[in-house]
Amino acid sequence: MSSAVFDFGAERVELAHGAGGRSMADLIDGLFKRHLANAWLDRGEDSAVLDRPRGRIAVTTDSYVISPFVFPGGDIGSLAVHGTINDLAMVGARPRALTAGFILEEGLALTDLDRIAASMAAAAVGAGVAVVSGDTKVVERGKGDGLFITTTGLGEIAPGVELAIDRIAVGDAVIVSGTLGDHGVAVMSRRAGIAFETEILSDSAPLHDLVATMLEAVPDLRALRDPTRGGVAATLNEIAAARGIAIELQADRLPVREGVKGACELLGLDPLYVANEGKLVAFCPPDAADVLVAAMRAHPLGRDACVMGSVMDGPPGLVELETGFGGRRVVDWLAGDQLPRIC
Amino acid sequence: MSSAVFDFGAERVELAHGAGGRSMADLIDGLFKRHLANAWLDRGEDSAVLDRPRGRIAVTTDSYVISPFVFPGGDIGSLAVHGTINDLAMVGARPRALTAGFILEEGLALTDLDRIAASMAAAAVGAGVAVVSGDTKVVERGKGDGLFITTTGLGEIAPGVELAIDRIAVGDAVIVSGTLGDHGVAVMSRRAGIAFETEILSDSAPLHDLVATMLEAVPDLRALRDPTRGGVAATLNEIAAARGIAIELQADRLPVREGVKGACELLGLDPLYVANEGKLVAFCPPDAADVLVAAMRAHPLGRDACVMGSVMDGPPGLVELETGFGGRRVVDWLAGDQLPRIC
Repeated sequence: MSSAVFDFGAERVELAHGAGGRSMADLIDGLFKRHLANAWLDRGEDSAVLDRPRGRIAVTTDSYVISPFVFPGGDIGSLAVHGTINDLAMVGARPRALTAGFILEEGLALTDLDRIAASMAAAAVGAGVAVVSGDTKVVERGKGDGLFITTTGLGEIAPGVELAIDRIAVGDAVIVSGTLGDHGVAVMSRRAGIAFETEILSDSAPLHDLVATMLEAVPDLRALRDPTRGGVAATLNEIAAARGIAIELQADRLPVREGVKGACELLGLDPLYVANEGKLVAFCPPDAADVLVAAMRAHPLGRDACVMGSVMDGPPGLVELETGFGGRRVVDWLAGDQLPRIC
Repeated sequence: MSSAVFDFGAERVELAHGAGGRSMADLIDGLFKRHLANAWLDRGEDSAVLDRPRGRIAVTTDSYVISPFVFPGGDIGSLAVHGTINDLAMVGARPRALTAGFILEEGLALTDLDRIAASMAAAAVGAGVAVVSGDTKVVERGKGDGLFITTTGLGEIAPGVELAIDRIAVGDAVIVSGTLGDHGVAVMSRRAGIAFETEILSDSAPLHDLVATMLEAVPDLRALRDPTRGGVAATLNEIAAARGIAIELQADRLPVREGVKGACELLGLDPLYVANEGKLVAFCPPDAADVLVAAMRAHPLGRDACVMGSVMDGPPGLVELETGFGGRRVVDWLAGDQLPRIC
């Protein structure tokens, strides 16, 4: 895995690379397999065959259409690995295998594709998981946008692990693993038309190991969610609506970097609505909150963890922010389209 | 599942449908879940959790970018179910779950999307499998092409079933399950710029049940492949190259419908290179060929099954067609891009 990135010169993706003939075989062997090689891919069968899992399995799919496809702190390749692993981690699953479907636009530079495959391979190795099966399609120039990647994750859930929003109860502490909005701000800072200077990097990272640490510290953990598109606001609204509960957040506890605050003011955004790709929101029994936060802070991906709010007894679906001195405001669903193509 | 298709009037996909807010939740609840509802989707978790499988599992992913996305005999929704089930079936797996990632172009008519979700649901019900997890992204007008769907299939493989191209041996019979090129011709007949009249329908169909029948008749079956992009020619070249064997086909045995022959002449195509979506190529020991063909012909999806050739002792990688009266021609890899976006 993670062989050197090639300079393909001016070579670009052509329609023939997706047509099932020799060009496609050459692209798969010379680029994808060079980076992602493993026993399953090398067999060259239509499906990868995995040994019988040791327990229940988790499965999840996400399509990645992020623009631009390279951004401070990552690219679409590493994001497509981390994002999907995180969806597995949110139900307590250890990632076991990934698959990847590539939709390439005619004209994409092969050197760019090579770099992204290398980044994907490095992210997969870093998370201890292999891309066991894949597919490549090519669409005509102007019918795509560089590349889109859809990854599916398969994970195994250990006996006794039961994370689900059904388990959330009134009084639960609402904990966040770190600073809000880093990913969204990093991506927006490179976007055509609104580019600005910032030192903020995407927080894109795989969270399964942090989750394992959390489950060890607090086996009674209720539920986890990663606040990606729509940020913490969308995630909490979704949960509050689905469970018919209310959630109250403390404004002064929300961890937000100065650079993110500044960029959000500049762009007219609220960090609560901005996407994260290496953070999670946890619900746990109130008496376990201190133990959980301490365990999270001892992990490199949870250093800024804190209790940011709690679950209240209604009104059903309400998410509210306590702003200090008795002030409150509703944290509503995102109405329009704040940040398109952020993941 | 498969609730009535709605008339959404002139409503179209907007960027907000992919932004993680209320519009997205409304699209998922009001359209996708209405058709595809099942216990896993309804839980609304980031990953679906499945019981421990009874054996080895197969996993496969394909992205579907077919143009046009509705064609005679199917649409991108049914195709995305059948095509992925077939990749599972080719390693002898029974489909157990599907996931779906949708990449929608801003401006897609909601009525079209609704119809495709309904078709996907009907195909899934028909094959006895549920879409357990999904994702929706929206890209700006001109950055996509209506919709792309990536499906991943999970299947279970019964103990003792071992289908793999490694097992192919010299002397094996090469069997095809039915007529060649129906899917490719049906799609091309509706393509802008070359539309023509034909009664040919896509052969899009799920093959797992035919495979189960075949395995029952000939447990010693060696390997299966579904000849999609690049047709039978690409599939056999891939196998011949990977295994260092030669394959000889008999021209007079290739089953091709009259309508496909005519269309291929019109378009300057060879049916051997045209995509199929409901056919398979099987390799089996020569003494089992008659039993296998008889079992296939008794199944609705194998009525036109026949032996079309055999595996020879080299030259490695050669696929040859015996054209009668001692004539032979090489069936080479597809050089250029014969039929882009055929699946």
